[in-house]
Amino acid sequence: MVYGNYGKESASGNFFTRNIVTGEGKIQGEYHQSSFDSIGAKGKDINKITPAYLNRLEKIARSVEDHFKEIRSIRFTIENKKLWLVDQRAVMSKSTQSEIKTRLDLLKRKVVDDRYVVSHVKPQQLNEILHPVVNPSSVSKLKTLPGGLTGAPGAAIGRVFFTTDGLIDAYREAQHKGQDTRVILCMESTFAEDVKAIELATGVLSSEGGYAAHASVVARQYGKISLVKPEMRIRGRKATIGDITINEGDYVTLNVPFYKDPVIYLGAAELIEPNPEESGLLDFIKLVRRHIKDFHVRANADSPRGAALAASFGADGIGLCRTEHMFFDEKRINIFREMILSDTTEERKIALKKLQPIQKTDFYKILKIMKQYEVTIRLLDAPLHEFLPHNSEEMKKLLAYMKSRKTKISDKEIRARCESLNEFNPMLGHRGCRIAVSYPEIYEMQIRAIFEAVFNLQKEGITVHPEIMIPLIMNENELKLIIYGKKIEGGSIRGLVDIAEEVRLSMKAKKLDYKIGTMIELPVAALGAGEIARYAEFFSFGTNDLTQTTTGLSRDDFNTFMPDYTQFDILDGNPFQVLNHYVKELVELAVKRGRLTRPGLITGLCGEHGAIPENIRFCMDAGLNYVSCSSYSVPIAALTIAQLNIEREAG
Amino acid sequence: MVYGNYGKESASGNFFTRNIVTGEGKIQGEYHQSSFDSIGAKGKDINKITPAYLNRLEKIARSVEDHFKEIRSIRFTIENKKLWLVDQRAVMSKSTQSEIKTRLDLLKRKVVDDRYVVSHVKPQQLNEILHPVVNPSSVSKLKTLPGGLTGAPGAAIGRVFFTTDGLIDAYREAQHKGQDTRVILCMESTFAEDVKAIELATGVLSSEGGYAAHASVVARQYGKISLVKPEMRIRGRKATIGDITINEGDYVTLNVPFYKDPVIYLGAAELIEPNPEESGLLDFIKLVRRHIKDFHVRANADSPRGAALAASFGADGIGLCRTEHMFFDEKRINIFREMILSDTTEERKIALKKLQPIQKTDFYKILKIMKQYEVTIRLLDAPLHEFLPHNSEEMKKLLAYMKSRKTKISDKEIRARCESLNEFNPMLGHRGCRIAVSYPEIYEMQIRAIFEAVFNLQKEGITVHPEIMIPLIMNENELKLIIYGKKIEGGSIRGLVDIAEEVRLSMKAKKLDYKIGTMIELPVAALGAGEIARYAEFFSFGTNDLTQTTTGLSRDDFNTFMPDYTQFDILDGNPFQVLNHYVKELVELAVKRGRLTRPGLITGLCGEHGAIPENIRFCMDAGLNYVSCSSYSVPIAALTIAQLNIEREAG
Repeated sequence: MVYGNYGKESASGNFFTRNIVTGEGKIQGEYHQSSFDSIGAKGKDINKITPAYLNRLEKIARSVEDHFKEIRSIRFTIENKKLWLVDQRAVMSKSTQSEIKTRLDLLKRKVVDDRYVVSHVKPQQLNEILHPVVNPSSVSKLKTLPGGLTGAPGAAIGRVFFTTDGLIDAYREAQHKGQDTRVILCMESTFAEDVKAIELATGVLSSEGGYAAHASVVARQYGKISLVKPEMRIRGRKATIGDITINEGDYVTLNVPFYKDPVIYLGAAELIEPNPEESGLLDFIKLVRRHIKDFHVRANADSPRGAALAASFGADGIGLCRTEHMFFDEKRINIFREMILSDTTEERKIALKKLQPIQKTDFYKILKIMKQYEVTIRLLDAPLHEFLPHNSEEMKKLLAYMKSRKTKISDKEIRARCESLNEFNPMLGHRGCRIAVSYPEIYEMQIRAIFEAVFNLQKEGITVHPEIMIPLIMNENELKLIIYGKKIEGGSIRGLVDIAEEVRLSMKAKKLDYKIGTMIELPVAALGAGEIARYAEFFSFGTNDLTQTTTGLSRDDFNTFMPDYTQFDILDGNPFQVLNHYVKELVELAVKRGRLTRPGLITGLCGEHGAIPENIRFCMDAGLNYVSCSSYSVPIAALTIAQLNIEREAG
Repeated sequence: MVYGNYGKESASGNFFTRNIVTGEGKIQGEYHQSSFDSIGAKGKDINKITPAYLNRLEKIARSVEDHFKEIRSIRFTIENKKLWLVDQRAVMSKSTQSEIKTRLDLLKRKVVDDRYVVSHVKPQQLNEILHPVVNPSSVSKLKTLPGGLTGAPGAAIGRVFFTTDGLIDAYREAQHKGQDTRVILCMESTFAEDVKAIELATGVLSSEGGYAAHASVVARQYGKISLVKPEMRIRGRKATIGDITINEGDYVTLNVPFYKDPVIYLGAAELIEPNPEESGLLDFIKLVRRHIKDFHVRANADSPRGAALAASFGADGIGLCRTEHMFFDEKRINIFREMILSDTTEERKIALKKLQPIQKTDFYKILKIMKQYEVTIRLLDAPLHEFLPHNSEEMKKLLAYMKSRKTKISDKEIRARCESLNEFNPMLGHRGCRIAVSYPEIYEMQIRAIFEAVFNLQKEGITVHPEIMIPLIMNENELKLIIYGKKIEGGSIRGLVDIAEEVRLSMKAKKLDYKIGTMIELPVAALGAGEIARYAEFFSFGTNDLTQTTTGLSRDDFNTFMPDYTQFDILDGNPFQVLNHYVKELVELAVKRGRLTRPGLITGLCGEHGAIPENIRFCMDAGLNYVSCSSYSVPIAALTIAQLNIEREAG
């Protein structure tokens, strides 16, 4: 027994071997001069202790860390000038950042090798340093509403708005006045026209759907937070959850941690923002990438900004560039709508001509950022009516736009045309390559835009690697038609290769390698992969839609009965997160059948599933070449792949 | 050379060996007294010829028929009392009825055996004697609109109405006044609430969907005619097709033959009504049934009337009794809606209690009619909102009903509850067994109704064979839960077997054999058939939905792009008529996997595909036990099966 209260030259204290939040190397803790124990009392900063002791404590800290290879908590006593270590133990409540910093330090000191560092961080832990986190000390006085479904994890603070226009107006006003621009979109569910609001907002609070709802998917795409509160009721400019009412303009904090249940705080909490440089994430990613070999991670990115982020996070290319997301921009949507609502091919071509340079510029920027890597560009996939107004305000804007365009159609006719595009089951309706069969001029515009961008870059001396992906293929006939075209009595469709060649010749460009492939997202396509591979150089498994069709579950409607299914333990996890057993069987079968036809077939997975470690393990086992996930999930997927490679090498 | 103009005892003539429309045995034709040839001139009825000649001509007719085994056309000349046969040949424009009658006569005269009779009628020819046909002589003066998609073949005449209520009112008024009650429903598309109009109407003219649209499926179910005219535009109480306008109350004739393109005639044509007795169909069916062995045909029937019809057409049981169709009746729909809109389990149970005796009576009647055969009763499958009002008139009625029920909910709340049941993709939404997981009391009511009916019949000394079918199964957990129940913290679901046993004990009835099985209508269920067969005693392949999910095609939305697909020859036939290759692969796989688990597994197909000969051939090859199709298609399916059996026996 030693006594810290043995007089002036005695003390007792407790410290962490480093800062458990930032990971900074300085020891962190308190000591109590001439005191038996430190429990309950406020002591002095350990770094203020007599330098001789501090020096020794620091050395001890390093050697304890070196031994345990992690941050430890140490208790000591100084009894009459003599330093005694009383106890040391593990620290439970340390941040991911501090863990990574510790391990990077250990690597620098050659205590561990990079294999060790990469293996000892759990992939989903990275979420914590990819998104801001709520400072727990800031919420103690705020009213708390626990529960809800995680749409996109993280933390968001802002004033609540119930319409996209309301949110945008409030955001701009705050911007002009130099006030707080943080806003949160609160809606039952979101649509294409709300994407611009999600882009401005810090987060989305909705009541319909769940992890795979539009709001959640878009939020993850843009690195925003999404929380689904099924019990929330919205009436006008008010939301009620139980007996709590949230009015427009009220501050709320959405705290949606990856591991714990989400919470809404009424009021604004404080956030701790991520900084990939400072958090050690970028250094860590470099280590991780050393262990990535023949199975890669790509990013789902639709904008130059998203592509740049993906590149900084170590993505080996873009696995899914959704061209329809490029049209959701406020300035572009009405031109796109004009195109959709055209009654004749000529009208449609006029609108398409306006869209082509916009698409070209986007493609140019994205391809340039990703120059050494493949960029998989998916041609238009969404059902056309997804782009149409979903509320009366949006409709008014469209009518005004159409008037300004001096088109001859009446308001009534515009409404009727919008109406006629409605579908009973849009998921299974007129979308994907089916639109290209009906309106080949749409894909033609997109193909021209891609190749104009590609050959522009070629002229700048930049060789890029575009992969053109045709979505929602049912059979090889569709693919053959779109790639090689077809002439029939009364009509003809120009083939992709002919359009590409025409652009090349007109730009006097050199020949260039590009790939043409397809998404496998319907059971019929997975089963028919052998025939489809005759025309597809790559397959990208769209496991969101493949899950919807294979299991007969609409991800937008699933949440009305998902709670009952969870309660009675009927499903083995949420099939939109964890790949269903038979969806996996279809993927395996498609890879096998596809490679029987085309041994060098490239295969990847680009659904929401690509960021989940157990799905990645499956993809590697099934012989796929890559997964593609949202930019913010790239580090998580990369770490999973690296760890699996290390595990395999170890035997 | 002989001369029929050789004097008074000379003649020439032409006759068929029997009536080419009715098949009646009397020869049919004309003769010309003292005339060289009959061409162009109107002669006398051949049956009025001098009896001596008539007698000889009749004998000749029989012997020519006996030789050629079909109706023939014969030319003769009488030259100076001497009868010469000049020529005899085949008859092209004979009716199916006359063909069948001829062959039945030949059988009676032992010229052919029943194998011959059964083999020489094309299955789809039977459509002609199952539905009324347009009398071609009656349309020569009517305006003709050719083209359209066949929903349900046949011919229908009636006044056009654009709303269900309008049609019903007009029908009743005509009924009261003793006027023509024939009416045709004309709508863009139909819903549950329009079924009562389809039931009264002679046919449906719609613009959305196609062969597999709601209007078409229901029309076939009720033996009504359905024609889809995608180019038709409905505005208020007017429909326009090209520059032709059809006003409410106008007569039209829908002529939708099985082999030829459909035609709309503006005005009322004359019809020739079918009579299965007179047409020889019933006798023919008896012959056909001799060649049905271990592969059977069942009927899809939801009403006692449908069951009786199925029985008369030789169905070996009912393969699909859709219990939700029982609620579409005008008197029942609002009780059902009250049930759907209940906010609490207690409210729901009160409404269910009112529905139970109604269901029980239907089950009782259907089971009694089909007593010696299996009756597969499918528990509720449709999404709940399918039962809700789809227009303001229906909504008004619902609100009035709810008021009369003195329920406490406001109009606004009723509308909100209806709204909340809307789904993005109802096909993939909250339906089938998913409803039973959320609201177990609904299936409990149906199960009680079935067993009360069964045990009532037992007490009358009638043993019936119910098969209870659980729809939209994804995995074995759902099935296990519904059959055996489950208790968890905070909730419990009673199992089917327990409910059945409880009914039995309360009715002091004897034990009874019944089967429990499932529909295989999702790819995940086909692939997981091995596990599902642990709990399912039979599989019924719901190939409508299996086609929708496997191919990603919504049958309600398919028709917007189907014409483009047909034009470019992308699909191998309409997948809702001809089973898709990979849908077949899934069916085969499910049969194999299912029988590995349960060798005696009974399997059938109950989609719209069951009436098409090439699909029936597949089902027999794949080892299924039966197909089930609408009552009106039963003779066609039976004939196909018999012919395939004969073909196989022949080697």
